Amino acid sequence: MPSYHAPKQDLEFVLNDVLKAGQSDIPGYDQLEADLVSAILEEAGKIASDVLAPLNSVGDTEGCTLENGIVRTPTGFKEAFDQMKEGGWTALDCDPEYGGQGMPYVLGSAVGEIFVSANMAFNMYQGLTHGAYSAIHAHGTEAQKSTYLPKMVSCDWTGTMNLTEPHCGTDLGLMRTKAVPQGDGTYHVTGQKIFISAGDHDMSDNIIHLVLAKIPGGPEGIKGVSLFIVPKFIVNEDGSLGERNTLSVGKIEEKMGIHGNATCVMNYDGAVGYLLGEEHKGMRAMFTMMNEARIGVGLQGYAQAEAAYQNAVAYAKDRLQGRDVKGAKNPDGPADPLIVHPDIRRNLMEQKSFVEGARAFTLWGANLIDRAHGLNDEAAHGLISLLTPVIKGFQTDKGFEMCIQAQQVYGGHGYIEEWGMSQYARDARIAMIYEGANGVQALDLVGRKLAQDGGKHVMAFFDMIKTFVSENKGQDDAFDQDFLEPLKAASKDVQTASMYFMQSAMKDPNNALAGSYDFMHLFGHTCLGYMWALMGKSAREALALGQGDAAFYETKLATGRYYMKRQLPATAMHLARIQSGADPVMALDAEQF
Amino acid sequence: MPSYHAPKQDLEFVLNDVLKAGQSDIPGYDQLEADLVSAILEEAGKIASDVLAPLNSVGDTEGCTLENGIVRTPTGFKEAFDQMKEGGWTALDCDPEYGGQGMPYVLGSAVGEIFVSANMAFNMYQGLTHGAYSAIHAHGTEAQKSTYLPKMVSCDWTGTMNLTEPHCGTDLGLMRTKAVPQGDGTYHVTGQKIFISAGDHDMSDNIIHLVLAKIPGGPEGIKGVSLFIVPKFIVNEDGSLGERNTLSVGKIEEKMGIHGNATCVMNYDGAVGYLLGEEHKGMRAMFTMMNEARIGVGLQGYAQAEAAYQNAVAYAKDRLQGRDVKGAKNPDGPADPLIVHPDIRRNLMEQKSFVEGARAFTLWGANLIDRAHGLNDEAAHGLISLLTPVIKGFQTDKGFEMCIQAQQVYGGHGYIEEWGMSQYARDARIAMIYEGANGVQALDLVGRKLAQDGGKHVMAFFDMIKTFVSENKGQDDAFDQDFLEPLKAASKDVQTASMYFMQSAMKDPNNALAGSYDFMHLFGHTCLGYMWALMGKSAREALALGQGDAAFYETKLATGRYYMKRQLPATAMHLARIQSGADPVMALDAEQF
Repeated sequence: MPSYHAPKQDLEFVLNDVLKAGQSDIPGYDQLEADLVSAILEEAGKIASDVLAPLNSVGDTEGCTLENGIVRTPTGFKEAFDQMKEGGWTALDCDPEYGGQGMPYVLGSAVGEIFVSANMAFNMYQGLTHGAYSAIHAHGTEAQKSTYLPKMVSCDWTGTMNLTEPHCGTDLGLMRTKAVPQGDGTYHVTGQKIFISAGDHDMSDNIIHLVLAKIPGGPEGIKGVSLFIVPKFIVNEDGSLGERNTLSVGKIEEKMGIHGNATCVMNYDGAVGYLLGEEHKGMRAMFTMMNEARIGVGLQGYAQAEAAYQNAVAYAKDRLQGRDVKGAKNPDGPADPLIVHPDIRRNLMEQKSFVEGARAFTLWGANLIDRAHGLNDEAAHGLISLLTPVIKGFQTDKGFEMCIQAQQVYGGHGYIEEWGMSQYARDARIAMIYEGANGVQALDLVGRKLAQDGGKHVMAFFDMIKTFVSENKGQDDAFDQDFLEPLKAASKDVQTASMYFMQSAMKDPNNALAGSYDFMHLFGHTCLGYMWALMGKSAREALALGQGDAAFYETKLATGRYYMKRQLPATAMHLARIQSGADPVMALDAEQF
Repeated sequence: MPSYHAPKQDLEFVLNDVLKAGQSDIPGYDQLEADLVSAILEEAGKIASDVLAPLNSVGDTEGCTLENGIVRTPTGFKEAFDQMKEGGWTALDCDPEYGGQGMPYVLGSAVGEIFVSANMAFNMYQGLTHGAYSAIHAHGTEAQKSTYLPKMVSCDWTGTMNLTEPHCGTDLGLMRTKAVPQGDGTYHVTGQKIFISAGDHDMSDNIIHLVLAKIPGGPEGIKGVSLFIVPKFIVNEDGSLGERNTLSVGKIEEKMGIHGNATCVMNYDGAVGYLLGEEHKGMRAMFTMMNEARIGVGLQGYAQAEAAYQNAVAYAKDRLQGRDVKGAKNPDGPADPLIVHPDIRRNLMEQKSFVEGARAFTLWGANLIDRAHGLNDEAAHGLISLLTPVIKGFQTDKGFEMCIQAQQVYGGHGYIEEWGMSQYARDARIAMIYEGANGVQALDLVGRKLAQDGGKHVMAFFDMIKTFVSENKGQDDAFDQDFLEPLKAASKDVQTASMYFMQSAMKDPNNALAGSYDFMHLFGHTCLGYMWALMGKSAREALALGQGDAAFYETKLATGRYYMKRQLPATAMHLARIQSGADPVMALDAEQF
């Protein structure tokens, strides 16, 4: 049975040492004083280890069940959900006007990582509610906000997002769900939505579905899509729950993983809905949820890898098998622990250096979001918009890969469900698919984000790296060589690839699109390289000052060197693949496959 | 529900055009006349599509059950097994002296691919029997051979291999199972073995367990291990079945995949066993099975990817989503099929170019085995011994990765069990673990095989590539540039890495071991590059002669160009990682993880 302990010291290192959050001028960041952060992470870690993590395999084994139209969550989920609500965890970074605690998003993300690592399927009930909260907060009327938000902040009511239909996922313009205006300001929503996470369950009094649908007579395709609030129970004027809306669960899907979360087919049969935002501008409102959700999914990628890594390390220290080639390390035992073997080390270092890099990247991204919102910082907004598909796509691909590697450390036991490593891999797999499959993230990155606002955000990214390198070089040869030089080389590969796209896409747009997936990974490695350079700098500074836990900072530097030496060589490979252009990719006719 | 059709034309291309099997001087290859090969593959394809493939999801869903000590296989397995026996498929490449059909191993492998693609879990019952057959055939006494082999060739009796114990997998020297001599030539075997595939089931009259155990008083560790034949029912002198041996199934493991195969905990309680081969030489005898099994597992890697690929292609052609960026390809429909999109193409080309390269590599390896055995060819024996860990490790890593990619083409539907793509991924996952986890394969390659016989086999590999390049260059600029140059560069990367290992391992053996996994992948890509050069040459020759299906050969060349352009750039990355040496990998103390 796997266990989990929150990586509190590393989260604090990123928040305090790297982001220096407590010293920021972003509104609300004055709350991120080190002691308070420490106390919050400590408490989150306790509930994660003691309550959520033990339910992870319960959720996987029992799954959710649909009986007489009612979805039952696994044993213990409801009690745990109540504890999360009582502890105020669902309200952490929500608006105080609606009962939230008003903490910055960056702290919400740090705490979110802990909960996702402990139990991803469980945390989705709250995560989706947060997304729906954000959409209503950004686009709702005052009446809608006061009706729904307080209950959603407390998670007395939970939320969902309804996009996909059986025949359309990515291409939402094909949508068939209809919303017919009733003349009284309400709409009747009819259609079938699939893959609705947390679509129904027994942990909240009401469920607020946000549903994309078309109003008859509106524009064709994606431009005719509107967003609706469709509550499971209609809310009376006084805020009490009224009649049951005409929507139902068709079935719960049997999935590869995240069994603890009910993935529902939802049938809307003239259900009463309320327009959220403007008519035919549903995609804009939905993207408020989607962008947040995409960063949350990128977080899931590395959070699952973190949990898997912790267990792989424990197993590698515990399991005795073979001998250190340079002499027994456990001479009195029958064999040495697995961790003496170089290839086990390689495996664990891949995991560790990815997870810590991705943690920094995600919190750095959350910090950008706080900056964009809190200071109306257009540059921060542009940069996080550019990097969102990288956080989502790169981190979920790598996160899954690392779960597979962690499973591999266990040998045959990794394949046996009872050891729990299979679940991390099966659960992490969905993150590569939902909220826009990773190929769609790559398309968003190369097809939209790179050229957005005349390409100024990617230029700003290059400038940021360049400035960092020039400001920090020449102080320490080892740091220059181990961190700054590889970062410079990786950034140059991203620039070369971007240039190739600009030049060759004129001839044939497929030259860029055929390289989009590699570009996402090339960019992702470079971002993590940048994070490692930032972390390396912070660790060096702390060591120079003789402050804090020297062993921690030395470990950080060694882990960073691993990433630079062993991961960044991937950028040249991705560049070579990109520069081969569209021809190898597009050579075959469809019937030749 | 996924479907499967045997890739008959491609198998014939490898056997006839590339390996020119029918013209070989290897004993038995005169049977590999094109018409007979075609007829055999045709019939194998029929039973695979009609009988085995439909049972694949049944096996996954139902799994095996243990009731009152008896293992029941999923509905339909027994009837299908009977059909396989009646069709003579279990006897295809077995010795005619014991009822086999005496066909070469290379044809057995081609047919094996078809069965594994259709239903991996089902095919393991037969595959393990074949491994046990081979061990008894190579090491058994005449009496043992005549007692067991005819029934195992027909699969009236099936076989297993019993190595792992709860506390030892890779490090078999720690084994605790005991075999106590009874003075009458028999032994009493006592101990617990785990992860025993096909350990018990209801499809055969008897099960012949090959069990590793220690004879008390023998040498310590791995040098004191012997191999025993331990039948479920003791065989009387007249060949009839006698009393039930004292062995039992402790439980069936709940696994991530291959649910159709019963993975058993086996308890031996003084069970009657017969020594196979010599006392304390059990590992040698077991390796007869293991080497065959490792190639068989490498085959599973790409065979699962083939099945997944076929379904991903069908889905990509069928699912309408989005529009071709260069203009609608299906203007009368609501959207274009997925296959118009460059990133879907990239995904499918990765799969196709890997699977076809791995098919060639595996059959080329099987051909080497036939040559080694049939002609007592030491060079062939040395080469396949070197490449066995590459076939196993590289192909199962990549095969799993390709199953994940195929699943990704389906978007959200790929995560839903009913679509079947999850099963390919879950089933393929085990191949990276069993028969020696892939890290152990890499260790075998770098720690043993590279330097074996003074390194002459790896030198022969380099010479083989060099000779091929020099014999074929200068005839066609495009072929030189697209195939020979990338192959030369990849081979040079393998040589540079080998040289680095030789030089740096003197200083510190961990310099080689820390690069072993990357070396396995570097070597694997180079082998597949070589296969693509061989296949490209054959395709060019066929096109020049104007023979056969020109579209097939053009497709082959385009697929090969993809591999060379888009996959071989990985070799430089692996080399860079290798050349960073042991330092980044070994920098941390165990407690720093």
